[in-house]
Amino acid sequence: MTKKRVFSGMRPTGRLHLGHLIGALDNWVGMQEEYDCIYGIVDWHALTSEYQDTRAVQDNVIEIAIDWIAAGLDPEKSVLMIQSLVPEHAELHLLLSMVVPVPWLERVPTYKEQVMQLREKDLSNYGFLGYPVLQAADIMIYKGEVVPVGEDQVSHLELVREIARRFNHFFGRVFPEPQAKLTTTPRLPGTDGRKMSKSYGNVIQLSEDPGKIHRKVMTMVTDPARVRRTDPGDPEVCPVFDHHKVFTPPEGQAWAAQGCRTAKIGCIDCKRRLLEGMLPVVEPLHQKRVELEKDRESVKEILVEGSRRVRGRARETLGEVRQAMNINYDRRSQW
Amino acid sequence: MTKKRVFSGMRPTGRLHLGHLIGALDNWVGMQEEYDCIYGIVDWHALTSEYQDTRAVQDNVIEIAIDWIAAGLDPEKSVLMIQSLVPEHAELHLLLSMVVPVPWLERVPTYKEQVMQLREKDLSNYGFLGYPVLQAADIMIYKGEVVPVGEDQVSHLELVREIARRFNHFFGRVFPEPQAKLTTTPRLPGTDGRKMSKSYGNVIQLSEDPGKIHRKVMTMVTDPARVRRTDPGDPEVCPVFDHHKVFTPPEGQAWAAQGCRTAKIGCIDCKRRLLEGMLPVVEPLHQKRVELEKDRESVKEILVEGSRRVRGRARETLGEVRQAMNINYDRRSQW
Repeated sequence: MTKKRVFSGMRPTGRLHLGHLIGALDNWVGMQEEYDCIYGIVDWHALTSEYQDTRAVQDNVIEIAIDWIAAGLDPEKSVLMIQSLVPEHAELHLLLSMVVPVPWLERVPTYKEQVMQLREKDLSNYGFLGYPVLQAADIMIYKGEVVPVGEDQVSHLELVREIARRFNHFFGRVFPEPQAKLTTTPRLPGTDGRKMSKSYGNVIQLSEDPGKIHRKVMTMVTDPARVRRTDPGDPEVCPVFDHHKVFTPPEGQAWAAQGCRTAKIGCIDCKRRLLEGMLPVVEPLHQKRVELEKDRESVKEILVEGSRRVRGRARETLGEVRQAMNINYDRRSQW
Repeated sequence: MTKKRVFSGMRPTGRLHLGHLIGALDNWVGMQEEYDCIYGIVDWHALTSEYQDTRAVQDNVIEIAIDWIAAGLDPEKSVLMIQSLVPEHAELHLLLSMVVPVPWLERVPTYKEQVMQLREKDLSNYGFLGYPVLQAADIMIYKGEVVPVGEDQVSHLELVREIARRFNHFFGRVFPEPQAKLTTTPRLPGTDGRKMSKSYGNVIQLSEDPGKIHRKVMTMVTDPARVRRTDPGDPEVCPVFDHHKVFTPPEGQAWAAQGCRTAKIGCIDCKRRLLEGMLPVVEPLHQKRVELEKDRESVKEILVEGSRRVRGRARETLGEVRQAMNINYDRRSQW
């Protein structure tokens, strides 16, 4: 039995942080045996919002690749590639644009939200509106069958499925409708208790050394109502406890919750216990990262070689698409 | 002095007719010596509106190429190519989409008009909205400096210029702003007096033989108020007289106008005189067409070879664009 094809991607808009590792990257790592995985650094997607300053894009590409490999993505098992090194994504994007109604794009729940929220960026550009068309092309160019998604991205994948369906309706069945592999994304707030996000400056990056991570955890915001050491706290409103749920085994979680509620333990004690679970996860990753940093050329080679390897598949799909749309000039007898 | 670069294209949505020859194709032919011309059959543009039935696209591509060569486009002087055989157009289209505000596209005068007018076609698709972005890519991928346009397309070219300007603003000067070479497009109505258009079934195709053209002219609508032979007519409302203005020398025009107004000549006489000017234009074209029809393989070869020739230029431009946007992975030292 052949393995099912998986495509997923990340935008090179900054270094990866714990929020990327937990719920996304760790799932990708876990899918490597069972699936035929292609993981893409989608640099064109970064341009849809970062076009006003693209200086960091190339550096982010390699930093992300280093994060990926350090976290366990294995170039021997999965393909790690750069979107723009397979220009067939762009051609399929253009061809799909013919059958995607503009209202489908305007109705994407996150579209208007993001245009409104990211006021410091002008997101009124045509490319940003077409983001889901490019996403569809990324998956469909490899005939992706499975896409790991968090709950917040289910509607995006539904749109990809609709685009595949509509293409097949007009031109005959070329594409499978990719299935969602729903992954649970635990809540992992930033050091200030808000959503972990580069723009809030509250992230714990995968590239940070354990000493720095230690300091960040020790200064993390806790239940704001617990002012003095003797005040009892509420773990359910404490960002540190959200991290316990991810990094600490059940009995440690119980110890922290009970100790907090009864003021038996202080926040310092609680954070030390968190680090006992967190550091064993991030330390080996950081170790591997340091090694990879020394040999950036090999990392580049992995990406270039991965892109080269999947380009053949992309060309094959595009050939079928051209044929289906009656713009295939290779078979001279047909025109 | 190097010649300035020209790009212009036609959509393969049907066979060409007299309206394409006069004011467009004849201008293209005239520009071949002075300019470095690339003429493209823009099949992706055809898909923006014809995606619901693409069966005729490939056949139209070759018919148009035959019309072009028969009308005097010379593959030794100009490049005749097919848009989709140079996929760099698609990549540049995607990259330009990052800097083109959606409102620029919504405000294109012909956009809403066409969506409203062509009700039998669903033009709400993302690709149709992005039509001007693809047009810009077609011209800019060759760093086109001059574009022959009729008055109705001046606003489209102005948009292309704005896109070039905006790209240069963000990423440094890569593109020239293409200049319009304004061509006068004489009014050349169809056989029923309405605009000559395939959808009205009132066209005189370049592929029609002189006998058929003769019959079409003889049954052409004239001044509807001139019911009897003895009624005087008004040349200014007569579609036949519009054709005289294009095909008949001045003294013949004067003869026709005066004869019509005074009822000295009948419509039959007037049309015979028109054919004296029109047939010498279409007959040799038709003759050459018959020859080319016999060797369609050579015509295909011209298009494939032309596309191959300009692809190098397209790649060069795209390399500069990638470099300017910081997504060039060829120079390893830079990332």
